[in-house]
Amino acid sequence: MDFEGILQQIATDMQAETERGTAAGYIPELASVDTNQFGMAVALADGRSFAVGDSHRRFSIQSVSKVFTLALALGRLGEDLWRRVGREPSGLPFNSILQLEHEHGIPRNPFINAGALVVTDAILAGNAPREVLGEILRFVRAAAGDDDIHIDDAVARSETEHGDRNMALSHFLAAHGNFENSPELTCGTYFHQCAIEMTPHQLAMAGRFLVGSPDLPSMISRDRVRRINALMLTCGHYDGSGDFAYRVGLPGKSGVGGGILVIVPGRASIAVWSPGLNRHGNSKLGTLAVERFAQATGWSVFG
Amino acid sequence: MDFEGILQQIATDMQAETERGTAAGYIPELASVDTNQFGMAVALADGRSFAVGDSHRRFSIQSVSKVFTLALALGRLGEDLWRRVGREPSGLPFNSILQLEHEHGIPRNPFINAGALVVTDAILAGNAPREVLGEILRFVRAAAGDDDIHIDDAVARSETEHGDRNMALSHFLAAHGNFENSPELTCGTYFHQCAIEMTPHQLAMAGRFLVGSPDLPSMISRDRVRRINALMLTCGHYDGSGDFAYRVGLPGKSGVGGGILVIVPGRASIAVWSPGLNRHGNSKLGTLAVERFAQATGWSVFG
Amino acid sequence: MDFEGILQQIATDMQAETERGTAAGYIPELASVDTNQFGMAVALADGRSFAVGDSHRRFSIQSVSKVFTLALALGRLGEDLWRRVGREPSGLPFNSILQLEHEHGIPRNPFINAGALVVTDAILAGNAPREVLGEILRFVRAAAGDDDIHIDDAVARSETEHGDRNMALSHFLAAHGNFENSPELTCGTYFHQCAIEMTPHQLAMAGRFLVGSPDLPSMISRDRVRRINALMLTCGHYDGSGDFAYRVGLPGKSGVGGGILVIVPGRASIAVWSPGLNRHGNSKLGTLAVERFAQATGWSVFG
Amino acid sequence: MDFEGILQQIATDMQAETERGTAAGYIPELASVDTNQFGMAVALADGRSFAVGDSHRRFSIQSVSKVFTLALALGRLGEDLWRRVGREPSGLPFNSILQLEHEHGIPRNPFINAGALVVTDAILAGNAPREVLGEILRFVRAAAGDDDIHIDDAVARSETEHGDRNMALSHFLAAHGNFENSPELTCGTYFHQCAIEMTPHQLAMAGRFLVGSPDLPSMISRDRVRRINALMLTCGHYDGSGDFAYRVGLPGKSGVGGGILVIVPGRASIAVWSPGLNRHGNSKLGTLAVERFAQATGWSVFG
Repeated sequence: MDFEGILQQIATDMQAETERGTAAGYIPELASVDTNQFGMAVALADGRSFAVGDSHRRFSIQSVSKVFTLALALGRLGEDLWRRVGREPSGLPFNSILQLEHEHGIPRNPFINAGALVVTDAILAGNAPREVLGEILRFVRAAAGDDDIHIDDAVARSETEHGDRNMALSHFLAAHGNFENSPELTCGTYFHQCAIEMTPHQLAMAGRFLVGSPDLPSMISRDRVRRINALMLTCGHYDGSGDFAYRVGLPGKSGVGGGILVIVPGRASIAVWSPGLNRHGNSKLGTLAVERFAQATGWSVFG
Repeated sequence: MDFEGILQQIATDMQAETERGTAAGYIPELASVDTNQFGMAVALADGRSFAVGDSHRRFSIQSVSKVFTLALALGRLGEDLWRRVGREPSGLPFNSILQLEHEHGIPRNPFINAGALVVTDAILAGNAPREVLGEILRFVRAAAGDDDIHIDDAVARSETEHGDRNMALSHFLAAHGNFENSPELTCGTYFHQCAIEMTPHQLAMAGRFLVGSPDLPSMISRDRVRRINALMLTCGHYDGSGDFAYRVGLPGKSGVGGGILVIVPGRASIAVWSPGLNRHGNSKLGTLAVERFAQATGWSVFG
Repeated sequence: MDFEGILQQIATDMQAETERGTAAGYIPELASVDTNQFGMAVALADGRSFAVGDSHRRFSIQSVSKVFTLALALGRLGEDLWRRVGREPSGLPFNSILQLEHEHGIPRNPFINAGALVVTDAILAGNAPREVLGEILRFVRAAAGDDDIHIDDAVARSETEHGDRNMALSHFLAAHGNFENSPELTCGTYFHQCAIEMTPHQLAMAGRFLVGSPDLPSMISRDRVRRINALMLTCGHYDGSGDFAYRVGLPGKSGVGGGILVIVPGRASIAVWSPGLNRHGNSKLGTLAVERFAQATGWSVFG
Repeated sequence: MDFEGILQQIATDMQAETERGTAAGYIPELASVDTNQFGMAVALADGRSFAVGDSHRRFSIQSVSKVFTLALALGRLGEDLWRRVGREPSGLPFNSILQLEHEHGIPRNPFINAGALVVTDAILAGNAPREVLGEILRFVRAAAGDDDIHIDDAVARSETEHGDRNMALSHFLAAHGNFENSPELTCGTYFHQCAIEMTPHQLAMAGRFLVGSPDLPSMISRDRVRRINALMLTCGHYDGSGDFAYRVGLPGKSGVGGGILVIVPGRASIAVWSPGLNRHGNSKLGTLAVERFAQATGWSVFG
């Protein structure tokens, strides 16, 4: 397959797109990012990798980090994690607090904010945020095979300053007895994990642990790989997950920084980045680009 | 792979299960079905098929019929269908009316009742219910390669007598301008489509058109196969869809008659039937059986 | 008190108002009503009455009829009625179906549509709609002391043709076992009761039975008068009830025909009519007019 | 009227009641209060006052304090307050966060927790909590004509320790731009205001400013008196407000400490206290006692 040609064509097409969505507006650091940027990278199971566009520019991975913390939490707590968080699509926006009230403080899944806060709270478990953030970074670096991955402190600070919604979710979870650490500590850790910066190339490399290929170094069991992929497919794009599954047909996890990590089980890890978002908070061009990629390669988990 | 041995082991295990769920209680015809029954059938892409237990006993396919009517509606309307129904998990029970009020009468997806009513309404399109039901039956029979598939009139009548909830959904859709026929006509057609009777063996055979194998006769395009599978995975088990994807890792569609149709893209169509339901309205042992089957075969769309 | 002067001033002020709201749009018969019309009438406990503007023009009383059917239902069923309907403000629009789903088909109060349908269903109780409508008309005529009060058949027919939302509510109530008659029969009766035509003068006269004055002929017990007034104050204007209580300080019941019946306990019954509605479905100028009247007279139940 | 006899009879009846509700359980200080206690006091417009039972025992007024802070906030901001909070019944429990999400952070009314936090935040307005609490206490003491009214610091501390739900509401309001001070400062002030201790006698005396009698010293305008009474009637008992209006027919405000302040416009201020609560969080015997009192006196705002 001519991966270079496919990626090149996609990059050209994306450059021509005029409706590029809007950058996340809730913190200045993200709001000011140029939406003309676009980068995409593919890491294949056979070790080859391809990239195009701004594939070596760092961006804020934001909620894509939830995939890594989920893997860590499952590694530490195993299936006990599911006592504190569900695994159903929520049918609601990423930052909604509605279901928590009726569902006794158990978030629907680990990829909406409330669920991701519970996951981070579970990893934190009384440890110092600094230590836990070190562990998260070590995991991401090991997955990517690249130590040059860091947290953008300015973004983390800004998230903290504008973090009322996540603080509200955290206090609400605490009120239901589903929080072990103080909202300040867990939110602080969460804001820093979201502020990890990576390039599309680094993210594609880091995603290889979810490809489940015998040719790739394995960091978690095959069973767990499948289950995280299942969660990415059903819940990875919030209330746009069904549409992503319909159009792209592959598990993916988006972040409001404009990044999406997409897994082709057994074949490849794909990262795409373009900062303009659609109305569900997922990268507009990023979604379109992986849809085109899936069409061009014929790759789909659905047949 | 020893499919016979795998199915035999599953049947033995299921026979030993004591917590078998509860049969659907809203009509006498379903409520009185013996929950000790269990049947399972597998139709492989290579033409072989295997079955175990009550695999030749007829049951009411109920909401599994939504897969066939969706295929028909997409065939007739194409992507225009999505103006009238979404493709997102609802996060709510199968018969909920809540989202319709806020979302202008556009059901979240074609597998919850409101969405399936819109699909049937779209197929009906001014035609006589009798004709449209004939068309649905022809499609199912052709897919199964078996003409001995019929509607259970007693079940259809009983559904009509207890059909207030679906009549409410239909009038609500009509109030939002998302209904072309009278609620009586569309609900009448819908109640009959749900009352189609099939054996697990017949259902497994009928599901082969979604396997997307070059070895099987194709009734719809490969692209459409993938998309229906995507919808089955994200929405096929109502507010238990995420859990089914997590545990089983395969697209499936359940019915309150206790049947589940499961697709292994490129490999097989599986039908399982056991009338006891879990709290989401999906077959309790049926879900467990396909989970065991997926474990035994190692089949999963997720790696 | 110079009631004539007060009414005259209000009518002059209302004539000058340019923002008059919008007539109800769901049936042509109401949509085409001229929003420049305004009429107001006051019937005092001492027998005197005053009127101004279009006070002798007939309008469709619509939901104001719910006050009369509630009085009838309480007369027939007594406190047993409250097994089928609550008496709490709903906090939601008049035609919402949301709470019914979570609250087992028990409508919040008798003045939202779902609750009023239950009340009419309770009065109907197996009788012929024609008989029950006769009873309702007799009650209204007796209250008004005026036999020239009738149902507008064209409005009733049009309501029936556009009655999907109320049919949906009725089937939903039936699905929860909170309906005794068929949705067609109860809705048919309800649409006709809403199509009663009265003049503001007639409505003010008909409201006297809720004034609770020893000088007026009593149709229901004083205790029941108080309780209906309490329900009018907390629930009579749907999700605008709190605002009406705050601004006007008197119990009232509105209808989408633009009429409002307002009770000043011990003193007077007031009817106002102007067809333009505010966003809650209550008469815009009608609300303003009774607010002015309350200010001018100093009448309020709150001190 | 024989007020002493009426109160005595009520106290005797209440003593005999076996179903006394349950004390608020969320902080130990309230959970441990003896539910056998009952006290009631009436302050008449003519200056006389009557009391019975534990009418000189101090209890935590909790949400009854919202009446005093609302009066203060209206005094300071006037009608501008309504830009930040509505005046509609919410139809939901006192501590619900649901409506805030759909309604842009504008609480439905000033008596649910979210609304009361906005009111306290508006009074705080950058001042030191200590100063504002001093002002609230001065207002309450002046209203009661009694300087022996204080804050129970142990209760305030305990509320702070268990204050996650109110902190969640506050951060949520802040996320919507409807908070001027930090959640910590406003919640801190709010927890202290709720921890004011009063006896039923003191509370009845303090409520006189809402009676609107020319014979009583006026602290706020008559217009404002009426409007606060209107809000108490429609919203003073959360999602039990409609029932209270129906049964009692008088404006009232309850607190989870078991106190209720009830106003008879032009006639009297009534305070009742019994710590056991009904399912809406309102005093079970307190409600019953004022219902009996209203029956015995014939007092009602509704005729």
